[in-house]
Amino acid sequence: MSEPALTLDGWYSLHDLRSVDWTAWKSLSSDEREAALSEFFHLMEKWSDTEANGQGSHAVYSVVGQKADLMIMLLRPTMKELNDLETEFNKTKLAEFLIPTYSYVSVVELGNYLPSEEDPYENPHIRARLYPVLPKTEYICFYPMDKRRNGEDNWYMLPMEDRRSMMKSHGMIGRQYAGKVKQIITGSVGFDDYEWGVTLFADDVLQFKKLVYEMRFDEVSARFGEFGTFFVGTIASESRIKQIFHVNEY
Amino acid sequence: MSEPALTLDGWYSLHDLRSVDWTAWKSLSSDEREAALSEFFHLMEKWSDTEANGQGSHAVYSVVGQKADLMIMLLRPTMKELNDLETEFNKTKLAEFLIPTYSYVSVVELGNYLPSEEDPYENPHIRARLYPVLPKTEYICFYPMDKRRNGEDNWYMLPMEDRRSMMKSHGMIGRQYAGKVKQIITGSVGFDDYEWGVTLFADDVLQFKKLVYEMRFDEVSARFGEFGTFFVGTIASESRIKQIFHVNEY
Amino acid sequence: MSEPALTLDGWYSLHDLRSVDWTAWKSLSSDEREAALSEFFHLMEKWSDTEANGQGSHAVYSVVGQKADLMIMLLRPTMKELNDLETEFNKTKLAEFLIPTYSYVSVVELGNYLPSEEDPYENPHIRARLYPVLPKTEYICFYPMDKRRNGEDNWYMLPMEDRRSMMKSHGMIGRQYAGKVKQIITGSVGFDDYEWGVTLFADDVLQFKKLVYEMRFDEVSARFGEFGTFFVGTIASESRIKQIFHVNEY
Amino acid sequence: MSEPALTLDGWYSLHDLRSVDWTAWKSLSSDEREAALSEFFHLMEKWSDTEANGQGSHAVYSVVGQKADLMIMLLRPTMKELNDLETEFNKTKLAEFLIPTYSYVSVVELGNYLPSEEDPYENPHIRARLYPVLPKTEYICFYPMDKRRNGEDNWYMLPMEDRRSMMKSHGMIGRQYAGKVKQIITGSVGFDDYEWGVTLFADDVLQFKKLVYEMRFDEVSARFGEFGTFFVGTIASESRIKQIFHVNEY
Amino acid sequence: MSEPALTLDGWYSLHDLRSVDWTAWKSLSSDEREAALSEFFHLMEKWSDTEANGQGSHAVYSVVGQKADLMIMLLRPTMKELNDLETEFNKTKLAEFLIPTYSYVSVVELGNYLPSEEDPYENPHIRARLYPVLPKTEYICFYPMDKRRNGEDNWYMLPMEDRRSMMKSHGMIGRQYAGKVKQIITGSVGFDDYEWGVTLFADDVLQFKKLVYEMRFDEVSARFGEFGTFFVGTIASESRIKQIFHVNEY
Repeated sequence: MSEPALTLDGWYSLHDLRSVDWTAWKSLSSDEREAALSEFFHLMEKWSDTEANGQGSHAVYSVVGQKADLMIMLLRPTMKELNDLETEFNKTKLAEFLIPTYSYVSVVELGNYLPSEEDPYENPHIRARLYPVLPKTEYICFYPMDKRRNGEDNWYMLPMEDRRSMMKSHGMIGRQYAGKVKQIITGSVGFDDYEWGVTLFADDVLQFKKLVYEMRFDEVSARFGEFGTFFVGTIASESRIKQIFHVNEY
Repeated sequence: MSEPALTLDGWYSLHDLRSVDWTAWKSLSSDEREAALSEFFHLMEKWSDTEANGQGSHAVYSVVGQKADLMIMLLRPTMKELNDLETEFNKTKLAEFLIPTYSYVSVVELGNYLPSEEDPYENPHIRARLYPVLPKTEYICFYPMDKRRNGEDNWYMLPMEDRRSMMKSHGMIGRQYAGKVKQIITGSVGFDDYEWGVTLFADDVLQFKKLVYEMRFDEVSARFGEFGTFFVGTIASESRIKQIFHVNEY
Repeated sequence: MSEPALTLDGWYSLHDLRSVDWTAWKSLSSDEREAALSEFFHLMEKWSDTEANGQGSHAVYSVVGQKADLMIMLLRPTMKELNDLETEFNKTKLAEFLIPTYSYVSVVELGNYLPSEEDPYENPHIRARLYPVLPKTEYICFYPMDKRRNGEDNWYMLPMEDRRSMMKSHGMIGRQYAGKVKQIITGSVGFDDYEWGVTLFADDVLQFKKLVYEMRFDEVSARFGEFGTFFVGTIASESRIKQIFHVNEY
Repeated sequence: MSEPALTLDGWYSLHDLRSVDWTAWKSLSSDEREAALSEFFHLMEKWSDTEANGQGSHAVYSVVGQKADLMIMLLRPTMKELNDLETEFNKTKLAEFLIPTYSYVSVVELGNYLPSEEDPYENPHIRARLYPVLPKTEYICFYPMDKRRNGEDNWYMLPMEDRRSMMKSHGMIGRQYAGKVKQIITGSVGFDDYEWGVTLFADDVLQFKKLVYEMRFDEVSARFGEFGTFFVGTIASESRIKQIFHVNEY
Repeated sequence: MSEPALTLDGWYSLHDLRSVDWTAWKSLSSDEREAALSEFFHLMEKWSDTEANGQGSHAVYSVVGQKADLMIMLLRPTMKELNDLETEFNKTKLAEFLIPTYSYVSVVELGNYLPSEEDPYENPHIRARLYPVLPKTEYICFYPMDKRRNGEDNWYMLPMEDRRSMMKSHGMIGRQYAGKVKQIITGSVGFDDYEWGVTLFADDVLQFKKLVYEMRFDEVSARFGEFGTFFVGTIASESRIKQIFHVNEY
């Protein structure tokens, strides 16, 4: 008989990655470019208000390499809100110059491998993790992943006891990076193509590599981890976005 | 000697997913946009008439994330009708602004693992499931899937008895979600690239995750499930479609 | 020592699948559209003459779903003729509005698992199958496939005797569909990415599903079948093509 | 300790496959089309001079199906020459109407499984195979391939002795096709995504299928062959190229 | 308990590969082309100054085959600098004619399989390898790779001792190519889709094939190597870039 892991679920999450169409962007007049950015900053202000009101959170990063130029991560209480925000963003002027390259739909998830007698949704420590304010660290790392179901290496056929003990040891590695790397796990079973999204925040980008590499030698990842594509980015504050989108006039 | 599962087959099904070309859509005048939507609503009315006459059903949802913006699901008595509806839709004005991103061709299917002495096609409960009116719930989830044929994990090499007993236990999980999630299975062997399409309807989107995740620990999914891409969407009534396609004039 | 199956080879085959660029097509004047169709119908007449002269055959179907809108299947005595027909079609006006989506190059093939003392190429029953007139049934189904070579499931490492006996049992399933489904096998080893193409013709589209699903429980498919993409279509006579490509003027 | 197979390496090879943009090509005036072809023929003459001087070889074929329309295979003493030829071709007028679809970078390779006491690079028979004049047969077949490294089926973990004996038996099959199929093996480890390219030349296209199919039952292919995409084409002499690119004026 | 390999990490690395849009490039006037190249050369000069100041390094190569035309490899002390350089390059005139085809984000990495008592970051030999000046050899080869985690062939489940001894033997092969091939390993766990990037530099392109092929018979590659796409290129000095981008006027 199957023993699914229990999960706690918080805010819904949308990772939205886009590449800039530079040729088209540069063909605008500087006034048009300024208007497009100003409309986007207005949107970001609304997101900031929502964050200030505890009704969601967001993060905006500049992605390194050709997979994307911009990553926007949005957290909201309902999936319909994410859908509305996405549509609103799609209709902005700036979005005309942004080519969609990847997106990920999920929900903030806490694995509940430990038995609990209280209502976890009332616990303030758990609430802070289910409805988090996204950090504004220098760097972000995002990748989706599955637990493998392949011959002898089938996570979902393991006894609950084995899964619990392996996850505990796995969590120990993560805990060594406390203060260096902030990790947000989002579950996407039934929502997107992988089972989880992993979003890491750090001021020292090398910590992403150290953490993920160390975990790869742990049985949970070594035998059972299947990884999707990795994105790494640098924080894009309003002033940095201005620099990125600035075009020299000749 | 092979013992294929017996199936009951109902209406033919087409899932049609499209992304909006927002830049082109916004370049239309508001009159042109209104005319395009009005033509589409006229089509939807015809679909509603067909549904009212018991000759088919349909559902229209707004998809979350970049995989698509719109999902249309159509059920009809013959595959030729689906082909004609698809062609009719392709020639509308709105379709000029919709980029095809995915489609799925299948037929409503009921697994017939239990022996039966009556003609199932005469049974009103079975007829209601073979020729269903699609629910108008807040959320939809769609994904195609296969039963694995891989080394020791080969569903099609199992004795009928084992398949029947595993499917029964699998069905028990589904039944726990009765009233929360409505599930429509469509068979696509010989029609499309996976063997089945799974379409779920719910008012609480989290139930999709809970159901699919719980099933993943069940042997049928854990050892034998191969999943395609997942789409999740929010209901798109006529008034919501108007909002989605509305463009602010400056 | 290797014991390859012997094959008989007939006409060369090209499956050519295309999607309509509806926006561009609709932008033509009705005179231009008529001229483009008329040129295409002229080509089809030449193909019909060739078929009447026993020098080849062809089939034109409308494909359901987004994978393609049109499937043309051409049979000819030499591959060079296929190449010339393809080039001729590519240069038509209609082809400017058809986006290539998939093609398959193969040759009509009969498995020769039974010993034979006569020259099979002189046998009229075999000739009728090597150089077939393609049926004009309501529906078509096409998919490419491989025999698996994977660990313990390696078709090409089996003794000839085992392959012969499994293929015989496999053929028995097909024979139960005689009169319902007409099957044409084309071999593509050395010509295209899979080893065979399977083209099925039927007036009842559900028979495709029944046949392919029943076969999937047979060891040849269950353990050794690797399937490519499936296309299903409805017959496109000249009058149906006119309907499909007809555009309402406002 | 590893015992790599020894190889002899000859001319560097570039397979360059392109599709024609027919709509754009037809939009040219007949003078412009003639000028574009004449520039291309001038390039082909230079390639022919190089071939006559023993400094390389080339082949031009028309590809069947949608994977490409044109395949150019170029052999040269250095990889830099290939890079220069490619750049020169890219800048021609004709190339504006040719969409790159696939390419393959490799070097003519002879497996050296037999011990040798003389310098093979001095042996005229070996030189003729390392620096070959490409045949002008009616048909060409090209595909890239790997030797499998998968669980028990790991070519690179086999003892040299086993590899040598399997390759010898494999070579025996090829030898049965002497006079019917000319085979050129090019090595691409470190240069492109597969380990070898196989280019076959024959006047009877069916011999490609017979050869590749027969080999597939041989252990080297059955257990260890991993195949990329297959291209098959018909010879494109200057006069055939003129026919292919000819456009009827109305 | 997991025993991850220890690594030393140096400069961050970006491989940026692009194809030329020749039709658009040729449509420029020769003055416009000259201005675009001159802007790019100015950028290269800034990169050269950085290299002269020991603050980074770069390499520019022309890629053979259709995968790309240009490969730029950049090394810098921080990932943010790479992100800024990429954005700066994206905004140049030349970049309007360069289509992104692939990129790779990583960091120069030295495997630290040998115990060490001193601080390796103070050792001048190690520093020279962590912060290298990229060679200006005639040829470059780049490919990403993983260590396999598949059933019995799971690198990350091996005892540290076994990994160390296999890597040592693997390194012995590399050492035989000292003076012929310069190898730079960059780690990309947490940064990009493979675990490592391998960049090889040589004046004799055949040495890439010999080295990679010889290694493939070594257990580390034979059993555990999973390879991504391979790129091979010829050096692109300023004068060679001028030749490549030169367009004949008629």
